[in-house]
Amino acid sequence: MSRGPGSPIGLHRVLEPRGVLPQAAWRLDCSPELYDDEVRLSVERLNLDAASFRQLHESLGGDGGRVRAEVLEIVRKRGKMHNPVTGSGGMLVGTVAEVGAESPLGLRVGQRVATLVSLTLTPLVITDDLADWTGTSEQVPAAGHAILFGRSVAAALPDDMPVSLALAVLDVCGSPALTERVVRGYRAPRVLILGAGGKSGALALAAARRSGAGEVVGLVPHDGEAAAVGAAGLADQVVVADARDPVAAAAAVGAPADVTVVCVDVPGCEGAAILATAAGGTIVFFSMATSFAAAALGAEGLAADVTMLVGNGYSPGHSRLALQLVREEPGVRALLERRLDLDMTVVP
Amino acid sequence: MSRGPGSPIGLHRVLEPRGVLPQAAWRLDCSPELYDDEVRLSVERLNLDAASFRQLHESLGGDGGRVRAEVLEIVRKRGKMHNPVTGSGGMLVGTVAEVGAESPLGLRVGQRVATLVSLTLTPLVITDDLADWTGTSEQVPAAGHAILFGRSVAAALPDDMPVSLALAVLDVCGSPALTERVVRGYRAPRVLILGAGGKSGALALAAARRSGAGEVVGLVPHDGEAAAVGAAGLADQVVVADARDPVAAAAAVGAPADVTVVCVDVPGCEGAAILATAAGGTIVFFSMATSFAAAALGAEGLAADVTMLVGNGYSPGHSRLALQLVREEPGVRALLERRLDLDMTVVP
Repeated sequence: MSRGPGSPIGLHRVLEPRGVLPQAAWRLDCSPELYDDEVRLSVERLNLDAASFRQLHESLGGDGGRVRAEVLEIVRKRGKMHNPVTGSGGMLVGTVAEVGAESPLGLRVGQRVATLVSLTLTPLVITDDLADWTGTSEQVPAAGHAILFGRSVAAALPDDMPVSLALAVLDVCGSPALTERVVRGYRAPRVLILGAGGKSGALALAAARRSGAGEVVGLVPHDGEAAAVGAAGLADQVVVADARDPVAAAAAVGAPADVTVVCVDVPGCEGAAILATAAGGTIVFFSMATSFAAAALGAEGLAADVTMLVGNGYSPGHSRLALQLVREEPGVRALLERRLDLDMTVVP
Repeated sequence: MSRGPGSPIGLHRVLEPRGVLPQAAWRLDCSPELYDDEVRLSVERLNLDAASFRQLHESLGGDGGRVRAEVLEIVRKRGKMHNPVTGSGGMLVGTVAEVGAESPLGLRVGQRVATLVSLTLTPLVITDDLADWTGTSEQVPAAGHAILFGRSVAAALPDDMPVSLALAVLDVCGSPALTERVVRGYRAPRVLILGAGGKSGALALAAARRSGAGEVVGLVPHDGEAAAVGAAGLADQVVVADARDPVAAAAAVGAPADVTVVCVDVPGCEGAAILATAAGGTIVFFSMATSFAAAALGAEGLAADVTMLVGNGYSPGHSRLALQLVREEPGVRALLERRLDLDMTVVP
């Protein structure tokens, strides 16, 4: 059954173009037979990343049937769920079906796990035509199989919270970890979270406060969300503004932030982040809708001496930290559950 | 003549969409009449950024006449030289023609300056149809006018080097400044420069060594460039590899770098940078061809614990540092002059 040794980073699964990394590939080999260091999962649920789902939803007129057809077509063509427009993917939950003899991941057959590497590099086959999905939410019930490489990252699902909640947390678990690291580099900084009511935003709020932030400010797009973030008790100040309007957003924030974390999943928030951040400050871009050129040229154009970080979704211990925040901070759990409810009803 | 007070960041020049920053705008008001804090320049020469010129050159089949027509059309439509495909611009050289009564920039009429804010946010009118430009190099002789805002950055041209050299240096002067800052955060780090033979690459090489790098490695695409970088004496090691091939590039580099600076102006170099950087290391993306999603998801997909910086083109004192490197390091000057010669002959 074995196909021989694999590359720990999955190079052996790249079909075209040859020689690139699986994430950069147009098409992957998604066949179920394992290389020695691989693991095959039975897929249970996909969690599309917010920017990808929003793009599909909006470009297809909010028609769930067309969104479903498009996701199936992308996976069929590319051997992975890699949105060609946003360049982003998401993650999945499944059960370990087979473990290659040389797999270093320590997984056991029957274990239920979430993948913490992006769907953009995970070989995937869908076998149920996504029949149980309405096409109207990021969470996609699915059947099929997926492949993990030697260096992939997966987390066993915790048994003390619903799968949908765990999945939502693990999907964005890089956010609190990096927020913590950056906030610790300052002395009691003023921390601004753009998109504080979302999943990564809520976790970043809590991580900032625990890491020694002097003040935590959450920016949200409307009063309903402001009420929810206020009730969660994670922010010292909640302001309402459109993060795509730099001038209005910076005015609403007031005193500039030392650390700004961008968690808004729509394009065009680079200017607000730059304008609202103090000289010597740091901006962490977590949104997959971030434009590299807009960030680089925007800062230069404003003569803004700010450090800008690409939000790396991986750091050691990130999933443990995120799950811990959900367990220990009722406000985080409340915001995440609210967001999950909204996701389920994004389209009437 | 005055039109009243302006916004220091140029909001008053944004025509559409309303309310965004000039860099994000589709179209700017490029009329010559000044607001109180503005400065008008008589344009002498544009320096298109490398990613933009390459895109125009390649998409138009290397036809200089078509490239020229396209640049004229972009400037006419947008009121600025903002390549809609790459999202990037470049900079310009001109002479101060008029200084608004409230301008804080300290410029004098008749002074010759280079703009250090991107062309993507600089109101621009071209009046000579670019008749003196062949359309085959990044440096574009031009006549017309451009507007600086209150918070724009411009540098007086030094009188001890040719304009073409000064312009090339100032265009990429953010690179050595940020490289220095990052290298100083490590103890005798191994520093890798991808694209070491280019303008920003050569400056980054020199900045890395002066900032306490333990070892400096330059990666270049072919033997000819390796010889030039070797002769410049700025690198401890020069390796030849295609930076778009992560596996080959990382193998060529050998021991992973603590700091990697990406100065290659073609898309698809994120994987090589990530694979060639050690855990705990930092990657600085200076290329405007960088994909945010490819960087973020690539690092996550490789479970790479690296800090990734968006190369901010501005930091205080950046132009002085870059010009100083050119004056004091003959190797830097040699590489820059070689690159200028190549630019002039990119198409036979």
